[in-house]
Amino acid sequence: MQATIDTQQRILDSARELFFARSYADVGVADICEHAGVKKGSFYHFYPSKQALTLAVLDAHFIDIKEKMIDQAFAEDLPPLARLARFAEMAYQFQKQMSVATGHVLGCPFGNLATELSTQDEPIRERIQQIFSKLQKLVSSVLKAAQARGEVPQEIDAGATAQAMLAYFEGVLLMAKNQNDPELLRHLLPAMAQVRIQRS
Amino acid sequence: MQATIDTQQRILDSARELFFARSYADVGVADICEHAGVKKGSFYHFYPSKQALTLAVLDAHFIDIKEKMIDQAFAEDLPPLARLARFAEMAYQFQKQMSVATGHVLGCPFGNLATELSTQDEPIRERIQQIFSKLQKLVSSVLKAAQARGEVPQEIDAGATAQAMLAYFEGVLLMAKNQNDPELLRHLLPAMAQVRIQRS
Repeated sequence: MQATIDTQQRILDSARELFFARSYADVGVADICEHAGVKKGSFYHFYPSKQALTLAVLDAHFIDIKEKMIDQAFAEDLPPLARLARFAEMAYQFQKQMSVATGHVLGCPFGNLATELSTQDEPIRERIQQIFSKLQKLVSSVLKAAQARGEVPQEIDAGATAQAMLAYFEGVLLMAKNQNDPELLRHLLPAMAQVRIQRS
Repeated sequence: MQATIDTQQRILDSARELFFARSYADVGVADICEHAGVKKGSFYHFYPSKQALTLAVLDAHFIDIKEKMIDQAFAEDLPPLARLARFAEMAYQFQKQMSVATGHVLGCPFGNLATELSTQDEPIRERIQQIFSKLQKLVSSVLKAAQARGEVPQEIDAGATAQAMLAYFEGVLLMAKNQNDPELLRHLLPAMAQVRIQRS
């Protein structure tokens, strides 16, 4: 039983690592099996398709990022807007660490797959949209808490502003990946807190 | 001679269309040849590799976007910041048009290939960085013109702000592609003009 869990986990971990470092289409089932040290039959025992595995990869990334970054960044020991700043700083530290480890800024695992697959794979597109929607709700609740404290004007649309902040965050990660320079996050991400969309 | 130019152009146009609609890795040389109605030998006569073709695709996209969008959007008949707003509106119209034509928001041809390939293909990563750098200089010159008119404060770093605006633009296109909703551009892109990075 433990061997079974280990095998499935190794397949999942290998796919996460390879997709993040390269891309979805560039990494085949054979690459994942080789990296995980498992046979193809074993792969299809756990995952009916590469798409099914990718949905599991997205969920695993989200659980991991939530535990290791979001829950700490958004803890209520700081005022609302300072939590956003802490999130930006943690994202910078994570990208820098990955850059030192791999030689590349890897960007956002959700944004990467979103640009690669949104026109091509509807279930994957939808799953990423659900994850972005969860992140947006989280940022929106931070903005509402800031509004309740008078730190953000009431006429700001918290939902749309959260969406705009997330878009900015994704855009900075995209540019940092393209320039292969994690310092771009340190220079640009703090401006995320200034983005505002008025209520229409 | 004309037939030669036509063949090369058909290969280039097919690759542009297929990469933009799908992704780099998902589209093989065989797909491009089939779409263009040319033989593989003909492909390799014009392009030594898929990478060489992709560099030509990036250049062709930039020339096209410059002629059809940038030169019009940034014409000096409007005050500087209104040119940025016109660019945002034209980007929305373009994405909407592509969405009607294909059923999908296609996002940014540079941003798409940047997220897919920046860790994997150094010449392509560099070419996209050069294109982003040209766009950044353009936006930076608009901001400097706005500063000269007193419409943007002097303490703003025009270069870094242009980079942040471009990142925001790319992020909004990424989110719109993921949500498959061109209206996101209309709602979120106008906030691009508010992004500010102070001189450090």
